[in-house]
Parts: sequence; structure tokens; C-alpha cells
Amino acid sequence: MKKLEAKCEIDVEFYDLDPMNVVWHGNYVKYLEKARCDLLEKIGYTYDDMKKDNSAYPVAKMELKFIKPALFRQKLLVKTEIESVEPSLNINYTITDKKTGEKLLKAKTMQIRVAIDSMESVYEAPAEFLKKIEEFGGQKS
Amino acid sequence: MKKLEAKCEIDVEFYDLDPMNVVWHGNYVKYLEKARCDLLEKIGYTYDDMKKDNSAYPVAKMELKFIKPALFRQKLLVKTEIESVEPSLNINYTITDKKTGEKLLKAKTMQIRVAIDSMESVYEAPAEFLKKIEEFGGQKS
Amino acid sequence: MKKLEAKCEIDVEFYDLDPMNVVWHGNYVKYLEKARCDLLEKIGYTYDDMKKDNSAYPVAKMELKFIKPALFRQKLLVKTEIESVEPSLNINYTITDKKTGEKLLKAKTMQIRVAIDSMESVYEAPAEFLKKIEEFGGQKS
Amino acid sequence: MKKLEAKCEIDVEFYDLDPMNVVWHGNYVKYLEKARCDLLEKIGYTYDDMKKDNSAYPVAKMELKFIKPALFRQKLLVKTEIESVEPSLNINYTITDKKTGEKLLKAKTMQIRVAIDSMESVYEAPAEFLKKIEEFGGQKS
Repeated sequence: MKKLEAKCEIDVEFYDLDPMNVVWHGNYVKYLEKARCDLLEKIGYTYDDMKKDNSAYPVAKMELKFIKPALFRQKLLVKTEIESVEPSLNINYTITDKKTGEKLLKAKTMQIRVAIDSMESVYEAPAEFLKKIEEFGGQKS
Repeated sequence: MKKLEAKCEIDVEFYDLDPMNVVWHGNYVKYLEKARCDLLEKIGYTYDDMKKDNSAYPVAKMELKFIKPALFRQKLLVKTEIESVEPSLNINYTITDKKTGEKLLKAKTMQIRVAIDSMESVYEAPAEFLKKIEEFGGQKS
Repeated sequence: MKKLEAKCEIDVEFYDLDPMNVVWHGNYVKYLEKARCDLLEKIGYTYDDMKKDNSAYPVAKMELKFIKPALFRQKLLVKTEIESVEPSLNINYTITDKKTGEKLLKAKTMQIRVAIDSMESVYEAPAEFLKKIEEFGGQKS
Repeated sequence: MKKLEAKCEIDVEFYDLDPMNVVWHGNYVKYLEKARCDLLEKIGYTYDDMKKDNSAYPVAKMELKFIKPALFRQKLLVKTEIESVEPSLNINYTITDKKTGEKLLKAKTMQIRVAIDSMESVYEAPAEFLKKIEEFGGQKS
């Protein structure tokens, strides 16, 4: 069975660096978000689809472990993997150097579905999302 | 007659610095925005008032001149002054060191009123905005 | 005994908001950093002192729990508390609404001391840091 | 004669958006910087080469004209062109929609060479930079 995962490339830009000449730690949150969007696009369930399903998926929790700092113009690979879809969308991330494969960061996010009209939490995933995951070949949770 | 101006304090934080140990040039745009919001709040015409007037004020043009770089934990003063309100909202900015008064940056922004429903440009300012400016004691353009 | 804690005020600015009209989740990392710098300044052991001690304190791990989103121009309070100094500097954060005290976010960071010359990890805190903590009235770990 | 120009692709990410659902105006400064780095890399004179030449090129002036806002996941093209190298490095930028070619932004930056050791302005370009430009086939100023 196909795993619910994707890879996303990042180029480290000057504006992401701090005075230590490395990526400022908070900027990795952007890399994770970019990778998460790519993953959802690959599965075929984007932010627009969420909206049609009256849903938003705000991040409720995130955890980042910094192993090695990224440098100017380094090419990175963000590997994303869906751990579970219900009751919350849990995604795991690993950032590596694109050439050497050296590990730079590990992270997790937990997102809770919210109904846009009522702003209430919903612990079931939208039917369309589950269908897309199945079509993609992944396990549902 | 009272001038349409305000002062806003900024503390330079670590996350705004670049590898040269100075504020990354793009981050001054945030300082300008903060100062602009403070100015509009002082006048009494905020983003919420704009919305009630079916208006948004996107930045159509900005120009920044960098005189001296700002350093970590430096305390800055952003002086804002409204140059004109119609046909566009033009604001001038000067950033100085809070203690020494040394000049670090000069900038200008031009914002054009847009009607939110039609997304069309409007070259007259909302009546409420003009009223608030007059109450504040400033000249209308 | 005095607790090793501090409070820092944050004004939510427009540039920190996302399309949901709330602070984009990654921007809280900046609020935490600002609060951490304030805490260290209050204790009297700043980034400059770290450098004199041949030390840097990169963030090795961070965890954020988002309870309620922050809104435009909301005034926030970031309460910081040092949990331990050795073998790593662990700080806990709570962000609340300044007026109502309502809790918005809880977070933790772990920072590991690195010797700048060798780039090696050091599990003891600099003597000067421990001295400042004691003078401040806090418990050492 | 070959023109000193380059093209750089940008994907608009969620973290660059503001509450109007468009790219926050200050974030275009990042797109310009990315494009400028790409241009310099294409010519073969990077930030590392600058350092070897005891030089930095801080932005002394920038001007941005916002024509049409960029949207989530829109693919943009940033066209850069060197206007002059001496006495300052002046670059022009045009951002267009990658598919339709529609113009979204025009910008200019002026960068002044600074000798890193003395921090003094230098109005001549490094010999190596001029050589690379000639090899690349461009006119020197």
C-alpha cells in the first residue's frame, strides 16, 4: 500500500538567515507549511477543498527538534508523512540536506478540523478528504 | 494648526537581524506599517472604520532610503506624517535612534482607497476619515 | 525564593496576521523569542554576555500548543519561566490576553549551550550566568 | 550583446498572505532578494565572491510599485535586469504571472558597495565582478 507521503524542495534564502549565519529557528515553520501544502496538493485535497467542506485545519500543536542548522543556499528536502487523519490530522516531517541526506530537523504537527460556520472542532475528517486519501492509495488512519 | 503626525517606538529584536548583525532591509516595512497603524489610531480612523466605509487602503507604492543600519535591541523612533489624503493617502516616515536622534531611514508610502465591494479605486477619502482629520486638527490635504 | 520569571507585552500587528484574520501560527515563535530576551535582560545575562563567555544558546527543541488565536491589535502578555539551566536551558511560556487573562498559547523551548570556538555542546552553564541567577534570587536548576 | 538579466520563479505560499487573501506587500522584498541572488549566481559573482573581495552590497534604496496583488499558490516570474554596476549596483525588477504574463509589480533597488574592513562606501565595482559581467556578455554599466 502506498504511503501518504511527499517530498518538497527548499532553497535557503538570505532573508531566512540570522546573525549566526544559519536559518533562524522560527523560519523552519514556513518550510513545514510549504511541505504540508505540497503533500495535500499531491493527495488532491487542497485548502480550497477544505473551504468547500466548511473546514479549516488550524495547527493545534507543533514540535520541532533542531539537529543541525541549515546554511545559505543549501538545498533541503522536506519529507512529509501523514501519521493519522482522525481524530486530528497528524503529520511528521524530516528535513535533510538534498545532496548528502544528512538530517537537519524532525518535526510534528497536529491540526484539528474546525467547522468554519460554527468554529467548533470536528473530530471526523471530511468524506471527500478520506476518499482522496483512499484513491491516493493510503491507509485511512 | 496641529500637524497630522505621530511617533511610534520600535525595539529591534533578534529575529529581525540578518547575517550582517543588522536589521534585514525588508523588515523595516513592518516598522513602517506599525507606525502607520499607530498614526491612524491616534487620528481615530482605524482599519475597522475603513471596513465600515467599504474601504481598504492597499499600498500602491513605497520608497525606502536606508541611511544607517539598526542594531540588536536598539530603540528606534518612527515619526510618521500624513502628506496628503486625496487623491491618495501619502505618508512620510523617518526612523531615528531614540536616544541620539540619529537618522537611520527615510520612507514614503502611497495608498489608494479601494471600494471593497467593487474592488475599484476611489480617489476621494471617506467623509468619516476627513472628519476625523479635521477634529484632530490637521489640514485636509 | 524569587522565581526566575518575567512578563513581556506584545501588540499584535497587521503583518503577523494570516487570511483567517488571526496571527499566523509561526509568528508566535517571534513572540517567544522577544519574551526570552526580556527575561535574560531582567536576570542580567544577555546575548552579549553569552558571547563574552564563548557561548551561544541555539534552540534545540521547541513545542507550541495553540489554544486560542490572537487577533489584530490584541494586547498579549507572554509569561516566561526558567525551568532549568543545566544540562540545558529550558524555558516555559504562557501567552494570555493582557486584559482578560484568557490563555492563548503554551510553549516550551530547550536550548543547548554551544562553545562558539569549537562548536561543541556544553552541558554546564557559564559561571557568570549561574551567578546572575543567584543574585536575581532564583534557584540554580 | 547579451543583456544582464535573469528570471526567477516564485510560488506564493500561505505564510506570505495577509487578511486580504493576497501577499502582504512587505513580502515582495523577499521575492526581489531571491531573484537578485539568482541573477548574481547566473553571472557567477555570489555573496561569497563579494566577501573575498572585502565587499558587502547593502541595499541603500528601494522602490516598489504594486500593480496587482498576488494570490495563494500563484506562480510568479521575477525578471531582473542590471541597470548599472558603478557607481552603485542598480537592479530593476518586474514580477508577472507565470502563465498569463500579467504584470503585478515593478521595483528598483540601489546597492552601494561597502568595504567590510573599513565599512566605507566604495564607488567602483570589484575587478572580479566586472570581469564576470564581461564574460557573461553584458555591458559594464
